[in-house]
Order: sequence, then C-alpha cells, then structure tokens
Amino acid sequence: MKLPLGFQFAGVSTGIKSKPGARDVALVVSDQPCTIAGVFTTNQVVASPVVISRTRCPGQNLRGIVINSGNANACTGDQGYADAQQMCSLAAEAVEKQSGVSVSADQFLVMSTGIIGHHLPMNKIEKGIYSAAENLCRSEDGFMATSDAIMTTDLTRKIGHRSMIISGKEFAMVAMAKGAGMIGPKMATMLGIIVCDVPLTSEQAQVMLQYAADRSFNCISVEGHMSTNDSLVLMSPAPDSHSSPIDSNDLMRFRDVLTELCIELAKMIPDDGEGATHLMEIEVSGSSSDEDATAIAKNVAMSNLVKTAIFGGDPNWGRIVSATGYAGVPIVTNALALSLNGYDLFAGGQPLKFDAKAVSRSIRENRNTLIKLTVGDGDGRATHWTSDLGC
Amino acid sequence: MKLPLGFQFAGVSTGIKSKPGARDVALVVSDQPCTIAGVFTTNQVVASPVVISRTRCPGQNLRGIVINSGNANACTGDQGYADAQQMCSLAAEAVEKQSGVSVSADQFLVMSTGIIGHHLPMNKIEKGIYSAAENLCRSEDGFMATSDAIMTTDLTRKIGHRSMIISGKEFAMVAMAKGAGMIGPKMATMLGIIVCDVPLTSEQAQVMLQYAADRSFNCISVEGHMSTNDSLVLMSPAPDSHSSPIDSNDLMRFRDVLTELCIELAKMIPDDGEGATHLMEIEVSGSSSDEDATAIAKNVAMSNLVKTAIFGGDPNWGRIVSATGYAGVPIVTNALALSLNGYDLFAGGQPLKFDAKAVSRSIRENRNTLIKLTVGDGDGRATHWTSDLGC
Repeated sequence: MKLPLGFQFAGVSTGIKSKPGARDVALVVSDQPCTIAGVFTTNQVVASPVVISRTRCPGQNLRGIVINSGNANACTGDQGYADAQQMCSLAAEAVEKQSGVSVSADQFLVMSTGIIGHHLPMNKIEKGIYSAAENLCRSEDGFMATSDAIMTTDLTRKIGHRSMIISGKEFAMVAMAKGAGMIGPKMATMLGIIVCDVPLTSEQAQVMLQYAADRSFNCISVEGHMSTNDSLVLMSPAPDSHSSPIDSNDLMRFRDVLTELCIELAKMIPDDGEGATHLMEIEVSGSSSDEDATAIAKNVAMSNLVKTAIFGGDPNWGRIVSATGYAGVPIVTNALALSLNGYDLFAGGQPLKFDAKAVSRSIRENRNTLIKLTVGDGDGRATHWTSDLGC
Repeated sequence: MKLPLGFQFAGVSTGIKSKPGARDVALVVSDQPCTIAGVFTTNQVVASPVVISRTRCPGQNLRGIVINSGNANACTGDQGYADAQQMCSLAAEAVEKQSGVSVSADQFLVMSTGIIGHHLPMNKIEKGIYSAAENLCRSEDGFMATSDAIMTTDLTRKIGHRSMIISGKEFAMVAMAKGAGMIGPKMATMLGIIVCDVPLTSEQAQVMLQYAADRSFNCISVEGHMSTNDSLVLMSPAPDSHSSPIDSNDLMRFRDVLTELCIELAKMIPDDGEGATHLMEIEVSGSSSDEDATAIAKNVAMSNLVKTAIFGGDPNWGRIVSATGYAGVPIVTNALALSLNGYDLFAGGQPLKFDAKAVSRSIRENRNTLIKLTVGDGDGRATHWTSDLGC
C-alpha cells in the first residue's frame, strides 16, 4: 500500500477501552496546512466532537484529526464540549512540540466513538495524544495502528487504497472506516477517514466527498438507528505555489476513484454487522428519480421481515415486494418486478413460478444476496447495502 | 358480553388453514342495510380485498363483511381481484338464501389475511361461506367463532366490548382484531372489526373511526413492515324512521368510548408480537404539534436498538434519547428529558445519576415498559405502543 505523501499516522493504547493493549487514541496529521472536507450525522442529538468538527469543514488551513474510541463523548453537556475542545488543544500542542512548527487548536478536527453519556477520561486522553504525537510516522504500520484505534465492536479492520496517475504523476489515496455494530452493547457509530495527496481546494474536496458519500456511506444501514457521532472526512494537500488544483477532467476521474473506494469501505460495515450472515445489495430501478429509488431501496433494506427472510434462506418475495409500496414515493404496481440472485421471482405485478429450493440454496451458499427491483419505467435508480438479521 | 342488536356472526373451518378444525371463514351480517366505515392500509402494494372494500366505505346501504384467514389474496393479479369479487357474490347469495331477503354483492366488504402470492382455494371458500351463512347467530359463541376465524399467527384472541347509555337507552359495542406476527412465517396483517347498535350516518361513522384509528391502531407497530391487507371497519345501524342519528354531544361520548375500545384492542397486537416479552408504551410531549410527537414516538418505537435494550432489561437511555433526533422533526436538545417506568434518566439534555439496577429490575419484573420523553416546551403529544425484540 502506497501512502499519500505529506501525512503521518499514529494509533496508541491508553486504556479507555477495557481490552488490554487495544489502541484507542489516534492522530492523522498533515505536514503542511491541508484541506479537509466533512460529512456528518444529521441527528439533532449530536455529540460535541461533531459540533466542533463540522464548523471547521470544509477548510484549507487545517492540520489534522484527533480521534478516540471507547467513549463517544455524546450527551455529555457543557463538560463534553469543553473536553472535545481540549482534545484539539492537546493535539495542537503535542504536534507543535514534535514538529517545532506552530499549530493551533482550531486546525484540528476531533472524532469520538464508543459508549455515550460518560465523560471522557481526560487524563488518559492527554497521555494518549502526546504518545500518539511521538509515534507519528509515514509507514503502513502507522496507518494500520490508526485504523485499529478507531474501531469499537468491529470484528474486522476496514481499510482500502487506490492510486491514480494525473499529468504523469502518481497519486495515492488511502481510507479507513469503522462501524457499525448490529445490536451491540454500544451505540453504533460510523467513522471514515480518507487521505490523499491530490491537491484540492476546500470547495472541490467538499463537493467530491458529498458526491461519494451519497453513493456509499449514505447508502448503507445495519439496524437503521442514526448515530450521534457519524463523521466522514477527506484530507488532501491544499493547493499552493508548488501544487495547483487539478483540472475538471482529472477531477471527474478523481471523483470516480473516490466513490469507488468509498463504496468498497461502506459495504464492509453491514458485512461486519453483529451476527450478520449475508451482505444484502438492493438495487432499485425504474422510479421517476434517483431520490425515489433511494427511498424505496432504503425501505426494503430497513424491513426486519426482509432481513430475517434472507437470514433464513427464504425467497419470500412477498415481504420484498410489499416493502416497495410504503416508502412514500410512487410506484407502478403492475410494472413491479423482482429478481433475487438472478432468479426472476415476480414480474408485471404478479408472482412467477420458480424453483424455490434452488433460490434458497443460492441464498444459503452465498455471503452476498442481490435483490433487484423494478418499480416502473422511469430512469431513477439507486443501490443500498445492508446486513441480514438473525432471530 | 352484550352483543349489539341486529347483527349476526359466524366463523367456520374449511381447511384453508393447515391446522385441523381451525376456523378460517367468517361472516358478520346486519339484519338491515347498515352503515360501514373503513380505514385501510396505505401501502401501494395493496391486496384485491382492500381495493374492493375501500370503494364501498363509508356506505349506508351495506349488509356485511366476508372474511377469510390463511390466505391474503395479495399480489395475485386479475384472478385475485375476480376471486375477491366472487367472495362478495357468494356471501350475498348465501345470506339471501338464508334470510329470504334480496342481497347484492356490492353490499358486502371482503377481508383476507394469511400468506401472500397464492390464489384463494375458491372451492373451500365457497363451501365455507355457505356454511357460515347457515351458522349465523346472535350469540356470544358466534362472536367468538368469528374472532377465531380472523386470526393467523396470533397466540391470543383479541376482543373487547363496551356499553353506553344514550337518551336512557343502552347500546352495545363489540370489537375483534387480529395481527401482527413479529417475524412469523406469514405476512403480518392487522384486521379489526367493531360492531355497535348506535345508529350512525356513514359520514359520522367515518369521522369517528378515523379519529379512533389515529389514536390506536395507527399508533402501534411490531416490526414496522406495512401490510398489503390492513383493514379496520366500524359497523352500525343506518339511521332510519325508527332510529335517528345521535346528536353531537352523544357523538362526542361515542367517540371517546370507541377510541378507548380501539386503544384496548390495538395494544393487544404488539403485546402478542412473536417473541415479545414487553409491551412498550412511548409517550412523547413538548413537541410543536401532535404530528411531530407522533413522528418521534414512532421513530423511537421502530429502533431495533431501543427494542433490544428493553428485551435485555437494559436502561440504555442513550439509544432512546438519540432516536428522538432523527425523526425529521425539530426538537429542543437542551430540553430533552426521559423517564423510564417512572425513573428519571435524562433531563435538560444531560444524563442524570440513577440506580441502574433498580431500573433494570423494574423493566424485567413488568410486562409493560413506560418510556416518557419530553422534547421541548410545545403542546404536541402522542403515544405509540410496540413490542420489544429478542436477539
């Protein structure tokens, strides 16, 4: 894995997580003032780290992100807000101490994930931030340590990378994500951090990230409960005299690479849902708009009846078809069609004869289940990924 | 139980359900042309019985309802529509044969519940309707037989009754309901039938029923998957020369009695949810409108994270509080307050100290869990009932 130039990573263990040695404080730091764009939870009950970070995004004069896991610093009132601010101050001080370059608290974003309603153990956090600053490095090990330090109930590390050539020069993009436990002991939060060395203005970065998020992290669900802490950021060098922003053609290519990487990581989240035995992909087409298709795909994905049917290897098309009808958007019922793992189960608004045993076998024998729904003859289309649900 | 005058009931076994002797075809018939109001599923994927019944509601020249369980006649295309029409024709013929009075098919409503995507076994249905017509009676036994014949995965019969005095005369109101299996082998459908001997115009009946439904059957959820067949009807004598419609004061009293009875029955549905160990009552107040409170209460009720916490006896206020924030309606986060079974867990947007063991014990030792949420200082309020979720 080629890491993007100009960024350093660190993840250390401070004892916030109960598991001995588990990493729980991390830093991602840019050598130079950098661009960071962000997309955050729309829950009105929002954690202090998000309140602080979203005011700084997008920005072109930022330096990095400080992250802790094991405690979400959510629903913690004024003290929680002060603690989140303090994390930024500590990160700035620690990085300034290591680099010798002046860094201010408002050049840092902050992310927290873990249990909610408990105040942060600031003594551990402080030690952890200083320790992370000392361990900052440009190696794959540092990147992996950071990826581990953002996890909570995740069973698997969620990382990915891409490279792309722009004007004959190779650029790198790396990404890490965490979340979201199905019905775990803790509040499930999604965090995602993408770092690249393609120079972007803050406006470019924000537009690219929102585009990619709308097709990836905004198209997944596990249990459908929206977190107070969800945060996704894109870090890149700010254009300067040495690095001009990329042109519009390259930007479209960049957008596609970014979206592809975001989809790759986003799918890992429901695939790692607690107790999940299937990653379900729900493709809706034929609606009058992409937004309508998104609403229908999400409605099907959120149905416990659909999720339990897939868990049980049951090609119960009735549950799937009926879930298309109450998403609050129009469908053409006599154009309704459904295929499951390539088997046609329903068409023209009526059930088809099919080999139920073969379809059931195909569900049981594959980790991925592909549900394709046609809801009319419009051009709208969308894809949503979710996990199944055991009972 | 005093049955309303002028109505007959029957429920018979025809073998649509696999369990031997299980009743699966029913009739509710008025001696005279009567008023029937109806509230139906808003799912666009809607079963033929609903398509037919809703065109006849509200009406004042109706004679009854024909019902079958074991097969929902949903997603069955043109044949399904013809079968539902045929059920009305058969009911009219059979009742005409028994009563000697002329009855037409369009004086009947039809309801079906059970598996979807299968054509009705019309030979069994026909025999069942004729048998039910022969068994029509004014006894409690007939009412109980009908209540049993509408059930599918229900573990318990869901019935209730009220009486009221209007102008010195006693009137009776009886109700039956079925649904909705949690994660059962069949599509969950809610059916409800309320019969009274208070003379009502079709407009009065429709307004009363909608009012009651909005505070009862529209305020419950089990798994949140909207059925293709949900139907709730109110039957009453049509006013004539012998029975004038009741005045507005009495109508308000009637409305309250009807609403109370509907709430009583509606709560039985999540209480009977498959695998449910708690009936959760979620009261929201302080929103700017009742509609907003309804949206928040429903959002909390639909959260699998909240439902599994209650199943586990876990006073996880974080899951409950965070579910108020993404219902798409405004809340005042620093006015947020939560009590659970009378214990205050959260107030002024911050967690309170509480005896977690005592709250947990109170959840475990009571079938009912009362969640009270304040989301601001507005006058909006709503209540929603749901079942918990095992894992």
